[in-house]
Amino acid sequence: MDKTVTLAHGAGGKQTSELINKIFKAHFSNPDLTADDAAVLNFDGGKLAFTTDGFIVSPSEFKGGNIGKLSICGTVNDLSCMGAKPLYLSCAFVIEEGFPMDKLEKIAVAMEKTAKEANVKIVAGDTKVAGKGQVDGVFITTTGIGKILDNVNTSGFNAKPGDAVIVTGDIGRHGCTVLLERNEFGIEADVASDCAPLWDTVKSMLDVSKDIHVIRDATRGGVGTVLYEIAEQSKVGIELDSKNIPVAEGVRGVCGMLGLEPLYLACEGRLVVFAPKDTAEDIVSVLHKGKYSKNAAIIGEVTSDMTGCVVLKTEIGSETLLPQPGGELLPRIC
Amino acid sequence: MDKTVTLAHGAGGKQTSELINKIFKAHFSNPDLTADDAAVLNFDGGKLAFTTDGFIVSPSEFKGGNIGKLSICGTVNDLSCMGAKPLYLSCAFVIEEGFPMDKLEKIAVAMEKTAKEANVKIVAGDTKVAGKGQVDGVFITTTGIGKILDNVNTSGFNAKPGDAVIVTGDIGRHGCTVLLERNEFGIEADVASDCAPLWDTVKSMLDVSKDIHVIRDATRGGVGTVLYEIAEQSKVGIELDSKNIPVAEGVRGVCGMLGLEPLYLACEGRLVVFAPKDTAEDIVSVLHKGKYSKNAAIIGEVTSDMTGCVVLKTEIGSETLLPQPGGELLPRIC
Repeated sequence: MDKTVTLAHGAGGKQTSELINKIFKAHFSNPDLTADDAAVLNFDGGKLAFTTDGFIVSPSEFKGGNIGKLSICGTVNDLSCMGAKPLYLSCAFVIEEGFPMDKLEKIAVAMEKTAKEANVKIVAGDTKVAGKGQVDGVFITTTGIGKILDNVNTSGFNAKPGDAVIVTGDIGRHGCTVLLERNEFGIEADVASDCAPLWDTVKSMLDVSKDIHVIRDATRGGVGTVLYEIAEQSKVGIELDSKNIPVAEGVRGVCGMLGLEPLYLACEGRLVVFAPKDTAEDIVSVLHKGKYSKNAAIIGEVTSDMTGCVVLKTEIGSETLLPQPGGELLPRIC
Repeated sequence: MDKTVTLAHGAGGKQTSELINKIFKAHFSNPDLTADDAAVLNFDGGKLAFTTDGFIVSPSEFKGGNIGKLSICGTVNDLSCMGAKPLYLSCAFVIEEGFPMDKLEKIAVAMEKTAKEANVKIVAGDTKVAGKGQVDGVFITTTGIGKILDNVNTSGFNAKPGDAVIVTGDIGRHGCTVLLERNEFGIEADVASDCAPLWDTVKSMLDVSKDIHVIRDATRGGVGTVLYEIAEQSKVGIELDSKNIPVAEGVRGVCGMLGLEPLYLACEGRLVVFAPKDTAEDIVSVLHKGKYSKNAAIIGEVTSDMTGCVVLKTEIGSETLLPQPGGELLPRIC
């Protein structure tokens, strides 16, 4: 293992798993600590979901949101992925000395608005100020508690051969937006982040069928990284059909110019869903009526062969292995 | 209000309250968001406590602990202060690129050990890596869930005239230790942090009497800041008897040399407790048998006059107002 922590350890791919397994899981291991988006805990007869997420995004404002909106959506969505109705959030801030007060208030306003939309209450908080240069702007860690609906059991370990693979909208917007905001490439394009709270999206799917096997939000590392994780966890193969993967025109253009794969660009408002093939069409129909899932599509299926792999059927019909995620992401979104 | 965030906003005193009230409470306000150490939430018929805390301590290692031990104790103690048995923790890490892996593991080992002692499970986590210079070493945010014992109702708003004020041990060790570690003053003294998980301490007091009005851990800002907060929240006065306030020899020496008031040095393993006078002696007797409360003492009482003030009876019998906390703390411990 590396002797020091590198940016690749934070990119959500192979090195992140290695860091988590060798340092954190090695010491924190217990039956309730799983690799899913949230822990499932028994409390007084009910089942609650519990999850935490740190946000260190730079720039802290971007088209379609800011770090405040992101910090609420991220944790709301991690709970939602477990089939848990988000109830309560805590927020811990680390703020750099000299950070403008009006910018901080703008972040708080976005958090308030997003929490209201998601119908969650912020009930606990913490504020630390770090000296100039000890932290870059503002970091926010949100932690959430949700109540898991009865008869729902979603997990990255539950994908089954024959499942359809659904995405709830066009992919890669958030990563693309952050990349453009940094303005390192001198490219302009009309792309805004997909950042959104997704409990209503999840609820609409569970109203169609409780038998959904996997729900995951495709944040750090994008859809590609999440699919590789699920293929690994469920010991299955995944076959994607390129032509069915929804990508917005602007995102496709930027990716074309920079040689990026949209499957590896972060989303902050898109879910990857695995459900039995016979319910998939109904789920997608309902998603098309939702606020944040108008472009939902079935993009592939689960196979019993090619275990641990994600195969991409290209537009000309050939098959290729989607490159394994790993190394530092471009752009780093967190 | 200031136009930018200053270190004083993070010191736990008046400016911190101002920042929290004007920016965060103004936007996040709801009945479950209180000023106590943890939120009290109803979940499936039970009452849970929920709290979060960020740790940005520098240096990350000190005599008596490191940031890992601290991050577990801090959240375990915030739950304990609500009369809640700590059950589950989440940990979110922000790590600077280049941070030594063996130092990170040492932190994880301390967290493991402390979690075991406190009998809590770490069930959720998050890892982010920030670029070199974007964060100073490692920041940890822990969030905890605990189960509130029946018939316990502790809160900073519950102090009553006639209550005895108890501290569970000698004060100011942690702040003094961090100050010495930074070695800015060229002083050496045999002082180690009091950092410890305190659920057993709280439980032993509640076994004596469930009618304890306030339990608070005297972290950032020390005992003095906590007492001023409680005096304000409960609309009471507090009178302290200088000669009864336990301060270790080493801490007293350092404070004498540097002109510091031990009441404003942080503790990480000491509680301030308000209980009816007639149970106070029994509580202190039990505390004297505990692992982390051998020097517990009754240090004062609650009065109905001098509302919002903390009055110090000096060793020569005169009375003086304890200076209000505010401004930047020396040393900054978080």
